[in-house]
Amino acid sequence: MKNPTTDSLKPCFEPRSVAVIGVSRSPEKAGSVIFRNLLELKFEGKVYPVNPKADMIFEVEAYSSVDLIPDEVEAVIIATPAPTVVEVMERCARKGVKAAIVVSSGFSEEGSNRLEQEMVKIAKRAGIRVIGPNTTGVLNTANNFITTFVPIENLRRGNVALVAQTGMFLGAMLRSIVSSQHFGISKVVGLGNKCDVDDWEVLEYLAQDPETAVVGMYMEGVKDGRRFLEVSQRVTKEKPVLVLKSGVTEVGSKVVLSHTGSLSGKDEVFDAACRQAGIVRVKSLDELIDLTKAFAFQPLPRGNRVAVVSFTGAGGVIATDACAENGLAVARISRKTEKKLRRVTPDWHRILNPVDLWPAVEASGIIEACNTAINAVVDDEGVDGVIVVLAVFRGMALPYDLDILKEGRHLDKPLLFCIIGDKDYMELMTGVLEKRGFPVYPDIARAVKALAVMHRYNVQRKRL
Amino acid sequence: MKNPTTDSLKPCFEPRSVAVIGVSRSPEKAGSVIFRNLLELKFEGKVYPVNPKADMIFEVEAYSSVDLIPDEVEAVIIATPAPTVVEVMERCARKGVKAAIVVSSGFSEEGSNRLEQEMVKIAKRAGIRVIGPNTTGVLNTANNFITTFVPIENLRRGNVALVAQTGMFLGAMLRSIVSSQHFGISKVVGLGNKCDVDDWEVLEYLAQDPETAVVGMYMEGVKDGRRFLEVSQRVTKEKPVLVLKSGVTEVGSKVVLSHTGSLSGKDEVFDAACRQAGIVRVKSLDELIDLTKAFAFQPLPRGNRVAVVSFTGAGGVIATDACAENGLAVARISRKTEKKLRRVTPDWHRILNPVDLWPAVEASGIIEACNTAINAVVDDEGVDGVIVVLAVFRGMALPYDLDILKEGRHLDKPLLFCIIGDKDYMELMTGVLEKRGFPVYPDIARAVKALAVMHRYNVQRKRL
Repeated sequence: MKNPTTDSLKPCFEPRSVAVIGVSRSPEKAGSVIFRNLLELKFEGKVYPVNPKADMIFEVEAYSSVDLIPDEVEAVIIATPAPTVVEVMERCARKGVKAAIVVSSGFSEEGSNRLEQEMVKIAKRAGIRVIGPNTTGVLNTANNFITTFVPIENLRRGNVALVAQTGMFLGAMLRSIVSSQHFGISKVVGLGNKCDVDDWEVLEYLAQDPETAVVGMYMEGVKDGRRFLEVSQRVTKEKPVLVLKSGVTEVGSKVVLSHTGSLSGKDEVFDAACRQAGIVRVKSLDELIDLTKAFAFQPLPRGNRVAVVSFTGAGGVIATDACAENGLAVARISRKTEKKLRRVTPDWHRILNPVDLWPAVEASGIIEACNTAINAVVDDEGVDGVIVVLAVFRGMALPYDLDILKEGRHLDKPLLFCIIGDKDYMELMTGVLEKRGFPVYPDIARAVKALAVMHRYNVQRKRL
Repeated sequence: MKNPTTDSLKPCFEPRSVAVIGVSRSPEKAGSVIFRNLLELKFEGKVYPVNPKADMIFEVEAYSSVDLIPDEVEAVIIATPAPTVVEVMERCARKGVKAAIVVSSGFSEEGSNRLEQEMVKIAKRAGIRVIGPNTTGVLNTANNFITTFVPIENLRRGNVALVAQTGMFLGAMLRSIVSSQHFGISKVVGLGNKCDVDDWEVLEYLAQDPETAVVGMYMEGVKDGRRFLEVSQRVTKEKPVLVLKSGVTEVGSKVVLSHTGSLSGKDEVFDAACRQAGIVRVKSLDELIDLTKAFAFQPLPRGNRVAVVSFTGAGGVIATDACAENGLAVARISRKTEKKLRRVTPDWHRILNPVDLWPAVEASGIIEACNTAINAVVDDEGVDGVIVVLAVFRGMALPYDLDILKEGRHLDKPLLFCIIGDKDYMELMTGVLEKRGFPVYPDIARAVKALAVMHRYNVQRKRL
C-alpha cells in the first residue's frame, strides 16, 4: 500500500548513497566518527566524505561540496557548525538530495529559531526530509546505515526500534542496551529538534517496517498531538509502542523548553491520549527496557492467570502480591499439574501455586525439579503466563539444561524469569535464558509488572 | 543502660562459645557447611561439633551430645531433623546454653505446630532464647559468628543490618548484595518461624548495636504489632529502618500462611503503623537495596532543594520530573555557582539547574567540567542534595579524578549518582564512586527516589 509519509522517509533509513558533510582529518570530530562508522560497520550503500579543504580523507576521495559529487546522493549527514548549515542545505537542494540527517546543534534548542526555520524552508522547497537538527540521527541494522557519532560496537540485529528526541541520552541508552541486554535492534532514530520529521511520521514508517516488532520511545514534547494519537491508534493494534515521556511536571516542562525547545504539554492530556491510543506509558528508563525486553522476546498472554515457580518461599509470596497489585490472578493449577509436581516433591511439602520448589530441588535435583515444574505449568491449560524465580549461588549447579531451552521448542505462553544471588552466576544464567528469548529481571516485582503490562496491552488491543 | 531484651539476645549474636549440633562427615550437609564456615571465616569464639557417631570431624574433636562438652557452651546451632530437636533442646537446657539458632525446618511452616511449641516450652523454662526454626540464623561480621548454610565469601564489614523471616530468600539477597553492592554488613538475622525471638526484639538489639547504622527488613507477618510499633518508633529516631513487607494482598497473605505460618495482617493497618513509627516502607527488593545504600553511605539532606548535574539534557529533564513527583524542589542556584559554571561553559549555552553539562565537557574536558560543576553545587548554600547523571562510553575518559573522591574530603550534604552507558564502564565508575561512599543507580528515577526518601525520613524523624 502506498503511503506518502513512509515513502518520503525511506531515504532517511534506506539510502543507497550518502554523503557525510563535515568530515575532517581529526578523527575525533563528529563528522569523522560518523564517516568511519559507516565504513567500518559496512554500510551497504555508497559513502562520500565532504570537506572543503581535503582531497583524501581516511584514504577515500573527498569532495569540497556535496553538489560536486558526480554520482547520485540520496541522503546526507550534516555535521558542520550551525551557521554553515543553511548554505549546505542549499547545495543539497541543488544536488537533488532526498534526506538530510542534521546532527549539528546550536539551533532552536539554543534559541536560534531563525536559523532552523531558514534551513527547513530550503529543504521543504526541494523535497528534502530533515531529521534533527541537534541529534545523533539514524541507525538501521538491516543495511548498517548508522549516522551516530557515539561509537557503536556489537550491535545485535533484532526486532526493537528505539526513537528518542535527544542524542546523548539515546546514545547512552543504546550503549547500555547493547552492553547489558540480549535483545536486538532494528532501527534507532534520534529526532532532535524535530524541525521536519516528527514522531508520528517515524511511527508510520516503523509500522510498515518488517524488521520492527516493538517500538520504544523517549519523548519530551509532542508537536502534532492529534496526528501522533491517530497514527498510534493504528500502530498499537499491530505492534506495542512504549513511551517514556518527560517534562511531565510543571518544572520538568520548563526544563524541556530549554533543552529541545519543545512544548511538553499537559501531562493529564498526554496520559489520557496514551490510554486511548493503546500506548504503553512507562515511568523510567529501567521500565522502558524491562517492558521492551518482554514484548521483544515473548508471546502475549491469552489471559491473566499466572503460575509462579520459585526457589524461595518468599519469592512466591512477593510474586503473588505483585500479581494481585497488577491485575493478574494466581492460577488454580490442575490436578494433573499437581500430580506431576508430586513426583519430584517430598511428601511433607504441600503443593500450591506459587510453587515453592526448593524442597523438590533438594529431593530430586535442580534440573529434574525445574524441568518438571516448568513443563507442568507451561502445559497446564489453566495457566496463561509463568514467572520463575531462581536463586543462584556460587558452588551450586545452574539449571542450564532446561527443556524449554531446547532447539525447536516453542511455547505459546509467556515465561519470564527473576534471578537473584551471586552476580556472576546471575549474569551467566541470564545470558543463557535471554539468548533463547526468555527475559530475566533482577527483581520479582519487575518481572511480574512486565507480564502484567503485556496482559493489559493485549486486552486493550482487542478492545480497540 | 540495662535492657533485658538486648541482654538476653547478646548470646545469639556475640557468643564466646558455640556448639554445632548435626555436623556430619558429609561436607555438603547443612550442619557441616555451618561448622566449616565458622572455622574458615575465623569465628572469634570456641566451636564444638556435635555428632552422635563421630569422634573427629574435619580434624576437630566431636562430642556425641552437647551436654558432654566439658567447657561452657553459650550458644548452639541446631541443624538436625525436626523430630530430634525437642530432645536436643532438652540437652541444651541441661547444659545451661543461653541461645539456640534452629536452622532445621519441618515445624509450623509445614503444619507441625506441636513440635515447635514443645521445643519452645523447654527453651523458655531453661532461659534459652531461640532464633528460628526454619532459618539460616545469624551472621555477625564483628566476630564472624555465622550460622548460615549458604556459602558466604567476601562479606564486607559495614553499617547495614539485614533482618528477614526466611532463609533462602535472605541468603539469595545477601549473595546478591555481597557480589553486586559496595556497602558493608554489620549483622544478618534470619528469623524463620519466630517461635521465640521476634522482630521487635531484634530491632531493640540492633538499636544499641554500635556497628549498625541502617536496618533493612523483609517481613511476611508481624506477631506482636504493638511492640514492633513501639520499638520502631524509638529506633527510627536514631537509625533508619526500611521494611519490605509481603503478604500485603489477600492472595499474598494466604501464601504467607503456608510459607512461614505467619498471619500477615491487614496491609492498611501495617502501612499506617509504619508511617506512625517512622519506618521507611519499600515495595521491592530493588528498592530495599537502593535505599539501604543511600542511607548507609550518605548524610541526610537538610532540606528538599536539589541540584542536578547531567551529561545529557534528557537526564536533567527526567531528574526534574522525578524531583517534582517525589516532593523535592529543583534548587535555585546562586549567582556565585552560575559564575563558576560559566568559566567552563561555552557562551552560547545557558546555565540552569538542572545543569546540562555536556557543552562544558566538550569545551573544558570531562574532569574540569565535572569538578567545577559538582564542587559549585556542593558549596552552594541553596542546595541540600545533589544528583549527578553520568553517561559513560567506551573510548571516553572516565571522571576518576573527582575532587569529591579525594582522601579527607567530607561533604555535609548527600550526593547520589546515576550512570548509564557501557556496562563495563558503568561498573568501573560505580566501583570507584561507591568505594568512596557515593551510591550509584542505573536509573535516574531510582537515584532521585532514594534522595527523596532520605529527605522524607529526616522530616519525619524531626517531627516524631
